[in-house]
Amino acid sequence: MFIAMNRFKVEFGSEKDFEHVWLSRESHLHKEPGFVAFHLLRGPVREDHALYSSHTIWRSYADFEAWTKSESFRKAHAGAGGGKKLFMGHPEFEGFQVLQEVQSDGTARVLQSADVAA
Amino acid sequence: MFIAMNRFKVEFGSEKDFEHVWLSRESHLHKEPGFVAFHLLRGPVREDHALYSSHTIWRSYADFEAWTKSESFRKAHAGAGGGKKLFMGHPEFEGFQVLQEVQSDGTARVLQSADVAA
Repeated sequence: MFIAMNRFKVEFGSEKDFEHVWLSRESHLHKEPGFVAFHLLRGPVREDHALYSSHTIWRSYADFEAWTKSESFRKAHAGAGGGKKLFMGHPEFEGFQVLQEVQSDGTARVLQSADVAA
Repeated sequence: MFIAMNRFKVEFGSEKDFEHVWLSRESHLHKEPGFVAFHLLRGPVREDHALYSSHTIWRSYADFEAWTKSESFRKAHAGAGGGKKLFMGHPEFEGFQVLQEVQSDGTARVLQSADVAA
């Protein structure tokens, strides 16, 4: 299981427009092999910006990587850049490997670790 | 829906020990009202550290907040500080409000936004 996050520093006053762009977009992400779920997150407010992040859960890093090399990835990002820029600098990508999962019934399982490479 | 993340900068060479501490701990988090799931994440390797993060999904911010004020929270953090310190500085907390969720069948729902405050 792999979580791909893209962090955006949104200038004060642009929060509503930034959210609107995301919430009104047409997404085809769920058609990709290994896609589990997408979340749009609003994070903490910092000195000069509000932190937002996309948060996509993939079955594996390999599924995520295959998507980044796909035609649909290219298409999804071709439209970016049009319209007013609503965040500072570039989005900051952070990819996370899920090492352990604890579910609401208390079941814990190790998916990967320094000992058990997958 | 609320995601609480605590980011840790782990020094090179301490990754295995850091993971071991987490993977071998006894957790009672799943007994808390509003707990959805916990994930331990291994993030990108940076210049002088490996980024790790805890990642806890709560039903709402209120559930998360109630937990931070509980006796079990105090107990869970009382043991911290014992043993060798495996990360640099302090963990960096970031809380995220989930604004939109897209599931694997393509169903999208807005949970919160600048327009629809919850």
